[in-house]
Formats: sequence, structure tokens, C-alpha cells
Amino acid sequence: MARVSQEHLDARRRQILDGAASCFARNGFHATSMQDVLKEADLSAGAVYRYFRGKDELIAAIVTDVLDTVRGILEGAVRESPPPLPDVLIPRALARMREERPAVLDDGSWMFPRLMIQVWTETTRSPELAVVLGEGYENVRGVWARVVEGYQEAGLMSASVDADVAARAMIALVQGFAAQMALFGGVSEGTLREGVRALMGMGAVGREGV
Amino acid sequence: MARVSQEHLDARRRQILDGAASCFARNGFHATSMQDVLKEADLSAGAVYRYFRGKDELIAAIVTDVLDTVRGILEGAVRESPPPLPDVLIPRALARMREERPAVLDDGSWMFPRLMIQVWTETTRSPELAVVLGEGYENVRGVWARVVEGYQEAGLMSASVDADVAARAMIALVQGFAAQMALFGGVSEGTLREGVRALMGMGAVGREGV
Repeated sequence: MARVSQEHLDARRRQILDGAASCFARNGFHATSMQDVLKEADLSAGAVYRYFRGKDELIAAIVTDVLDTVRGILEGAVRESPPPLPDVLIPRALARMREERPAVLDDGSWMFPRLMIQVWTETTRSPELAVVLGEGYENVRGVWARVVEGYQEAGLMSASVDADVAARAMIALVQGFAAQMALFGGVSEGTLREGVRALMGMGAVGREGV
Repeated sequence: MARVSQEHLDARRRQILDGAASCFARNGFHATSMQDVLKEADLSAGAVYRYFRGKDELIAAIVTDVLDTVRGILEGAVRESPPPLPDVLIPRALARMREERPAVLDDGSWMFPRLMIQVWTETTRSPELAVVLGEGYENVRGVWARVVEGYQEAGLMSASVDADVAARAMIALVQGFAAQMALFGGVSEGTLREGVRALMGMGAVGREGV
């Protein structure tokens, strides 16, 4: 019997997850069958079921993988001193995400934001997936909080701000821009950068009338 | 034959839309039948079909209503001079939305963010709904841009910023916070305010290393 390398196993696992992600992004979780995934990944049932027992395991693995990627991108920012400011980091994180997950839908639009929305909807229906997403979100929040602490150490943000609270606002920006991409098409890097920068400049001014 | 007042018609319409919104938020659009909506609204088929021919019309009416409410809240902000800054306006807009749409799910969580996510997912599958949401989003963007222009006229934001670009960043914050509410539960008004304010204060500082 042929020995199968770890590399081959990893590549096969990725092929399955990419196929499943395409199906979920295109048609949603419920309208996708395991047959659709087999066809999309161009693999036999035996090859797929060796890795994943069903759709629930597939979507959980996709969410874990994606959030690991997000975390890796942010950990790179934490290692910079100071971390890039949000108007640089948020567009860069989305651009890096696009390099890591370049798949597009039939209409040429980036697949990932669509997948994100489908995952969110499924999360509201599946307690198991809610646990997976919740844990991944905690991790991402933790790394974002370290980015914020990097800002604070460099004097780029007031030390009195709760790092987790600021992290949630940064995450909200990323989530919201990704939702706009999924619903209304591309948002250019320049739009992201200029929009975040406009917001960042508002604390410097007088606050009369508030 | 009894004459029916406009008020009665409006109240009946609202009863149907609220029932449909509950069903969609709880179970998603596809898993909801018109029978479910009739039961939730406690009305007969005849009473409901007089107003809406089917689920597609229901969801389109819900989206139009919600976006009209959002627009109304923002138009109130435009009339203030200057408009409240984002760290005040964004929590206030979400609080006003909650007053206008107070329904909760069985677990006590606010229904509206869940409904929003379900609508987004359905939008990716329905070209008709995509048109409705797209038009509503354009309108909301337009009012947000007027809020931004109010900031600019009052010297609260650089006049060189494209108002639409800044509007998209504000909308991203609202969308992202609402997504966090839908997925991970309540976000307090204080968290919203402090998080947005932390972001707003970052433009005042030195930008070395960027």
C-alpha cells in the first residue's frame, strides 16, 4: 500500500474545504448537499468522508481555518512596533485575506465576503457552529487587543481606553466593510483607507454641541 | 359593508410584517412558510394575502420599512447643527432602532440584528431583493453623507474628505456592531461609545512607522 505524505493529505484537505467553501458561498449552507461538495472538489465520496463526516464538520473546519488566517495576519501586525494604524492595517488585512483566499464567484466577485455572511446566518441556527465561531472570535479579539496595546505603548492611543473595547470597534469596521463587499460589490483599498482615516481624525477637534 | 379606516389597515399591515420578521429572524427566509407567518401574525390567509402576495413581497416590505426608519433617525441628526459625532450618533441610532423595533427572540436577545443577517443572506440569492436593498442602502448612504457634510461645515472633519467615503466607514461600524450583536449577544451603549471614540482619537497623534 502506498504511503501518503502529509503534504498530500494537507493538499487534499484544502481541496475539499475550498470546494465546500465555494458551494456554501454560492448557494448557502442548507441548499448545498455533500454531493455538491464532491462534485465541486472533483473527488469521490470515499476521499471526502475520510476527512469530514458531513457538512457540519466542513463548515466548522472552514471557520477555524479562516479565523486562524485572520489571527496570523494580525499577529504579524503585533510584531511591528508600533503596529500599523487602523487606516493602514484594515485595508492591508483585507488585502492579505484576499491573497490567502483568492477564490471568486461566477460573477467575478471575491468569494470570501459572501462565505462570511453565509457562515453568520448558519451560526444563528447551529449551536455547535456558534461555539466554534465564538471561540475563534475570542481569539481574534485577543490579538486585536494586543494591536491596540501596541498603539497605547507607542502613545498612539490613550492608555485609558479598554483594549478589548477598542478591538471590538476595529473588528466592527472589518466586518462592516466585508458585509458591504458581499452585498454591494468591491470596496477599493483607497475607499477603506480614506474612510477609516476620516473617522480617526475626528477626535482631534472641538466637541461643542455633543 | 363596514368601512375600514386607514389606521386599521396600517396596523394590520404592521402586524403582518412584525410576524413575518419574527419568523425570518428565528428560522431564516427559506425555512419559513407563509403558514408560519399566518400563525405568527395570528391572521387568516385571506387577511394576509390582501396585503402581500408571498414571502418575497414580505421581505421586500420589511427591508424598505427598516431602511426608512434608519433614514428617519439619521435625518434627525442632519437637522442638528452640528450633527452628533459618531461616538454619540452610532450608539444613539442603534438605541433608537431598538425603541422602534423592540421585538426579542425566545432567548431574550434583540431580534433586529438577527433579521439583518438573514436579510443579507437572502439578498445574495435574490436579485429582486438585492435591488430593494441596494436602493435603500443608496438612500442611507446619502443621508450619512449629509451628516458628514454637517461635520465638515462645523469644522469637525477635514473638508477634503469625500463625504460618501466617510459615510461608508460610519455605515461599516454600524453594520459590524449589529453583526456582533446578532452573533455574540448584546453590545452595551458604553462599549459602542468608547470603542468609536478610541478610533476617533487616533488621527491626532504622530504617524511615524506607518
